[in-house]
Amino acid sequence: MKKKSYPLAKVYTLLEPGPVTLITTSHKGIANIMTQSWHTMMEFEPPLIGCVISGRNHSFAALKATRECVINVPTVVLAKQVVDIGNCSGRKVDKFARSGLTAVSASQVQAPLIEECYASLECRVVDTRLVNTYNFFVLEVVKAWIDPSVKNPQTMHHRGKGEFMVAGDTIKLPSRMK
Amino acid sequence: MKKKSYPLAKVYTLLEPGPVTLITTSHKGIANIMTQSWHTMMEFEPPLIGCVISGRNHSFAALKATRECVINVPTVVLAKQVVDIGNCSGRKVDKFARSGLTAVSASQVQAPLIEECYASLECRVVDTRLVNTYNFFVLEVVKAWIDPSVKNPQTMHHRGKGEFMVAGDTIKLPSRMK
Repeated sequence: MKKKSYPLAKVYTLLEPGPVTLITTSHKGIANIMTQSWHTMMEFEPPLIGCVISGRNHSFAALKATRECVINVPTVVLAKQVVDIGNCSGRKVDKFARSGLTAVSASQVQAPLIEECYASLECRVVDTRLVNTYNFFVLEVVKAWIDPSVKNPQTMHHRGKGEFMVAGDTIKLPSRMK
Repeated sequence: MKKKSYPLAKVYTLLEPGPVTLITTSHKGIANIMTQSWHTMMEFEPPLIGCVISGRNHSFAALKATRECVINVPTVVLAKQVVDIGNCSGRKVDKFARSGLTAVSASQVQAPLIEECYASLECRVVDTRLVNTYNFFVLEVVKAWIDPSVKNPQTMHHRGKGEFMVAGDTIKLPSRMK
């Protein structure tokens, strides 16, 4: 695997810009992938992430039962797969086989990492109080991985209905913000 | 005001890409602004937004007391103001006076819209169950405004420590995703 361990304290830098993610689960030995953009950081360290996984998604039952997933961050080279994964259901399709993406064993959870994504975050569910009302899960990142060769990741940011903003230039401003 | 009313059903297209926002509050007649990136959509319509407002922020007490705020979305032309607002506290500073931004009366809430931001979302707090544990508020957007002349908004996306990704090109892919 080309990915290296990444400090948990820096996980927020990956998700705070709001990229589309590919979330993997593994339930009863079957891995699945879903396309997901409704997430937010909730704490720096240990990193907590809030995310909505709709009950219409096949991944919802897997996440509820196993309480584990991996949040993978793709770049625009995977645009076709990102959209196709969002357009079919794991109920009917083996999404790893269909997409050609590579499942790699995680270190802390059963759900697999996606090799082709530049970052992967192994997560456990830590709070389900808002699941019944909003399908909102609070996750703790227990292990983070990144491909250190990707310097300015061209992440995808969903504007709705298949329109994506692709990450542009990075600017640096004097700041005391974390 | 150059902004026009915007359909609530399309609010998700503004926040799903993950832009930095400027959140305004008004408490005891004093308006304040904070810079905020930790937010996620939670429902399409009525639009629900989850966001973390740290107890360290002066805006926390205002939001808790008034249960109202406005989420304003700036573009990169406001980069200096976005960073400066994130670097000082409403406890000590009148952020509207300091930033030179223009407060405009909202229609449904006491907190003001920021004229220079290309979109503004008037919000009410609808769920506080996760406030004590994570400073996480669930907001309902009750009125949305947009400047229709801004076609491809160059939003800012925080990568941490004053580094921002500026929105790049938009690509369109065939999709059945909402």
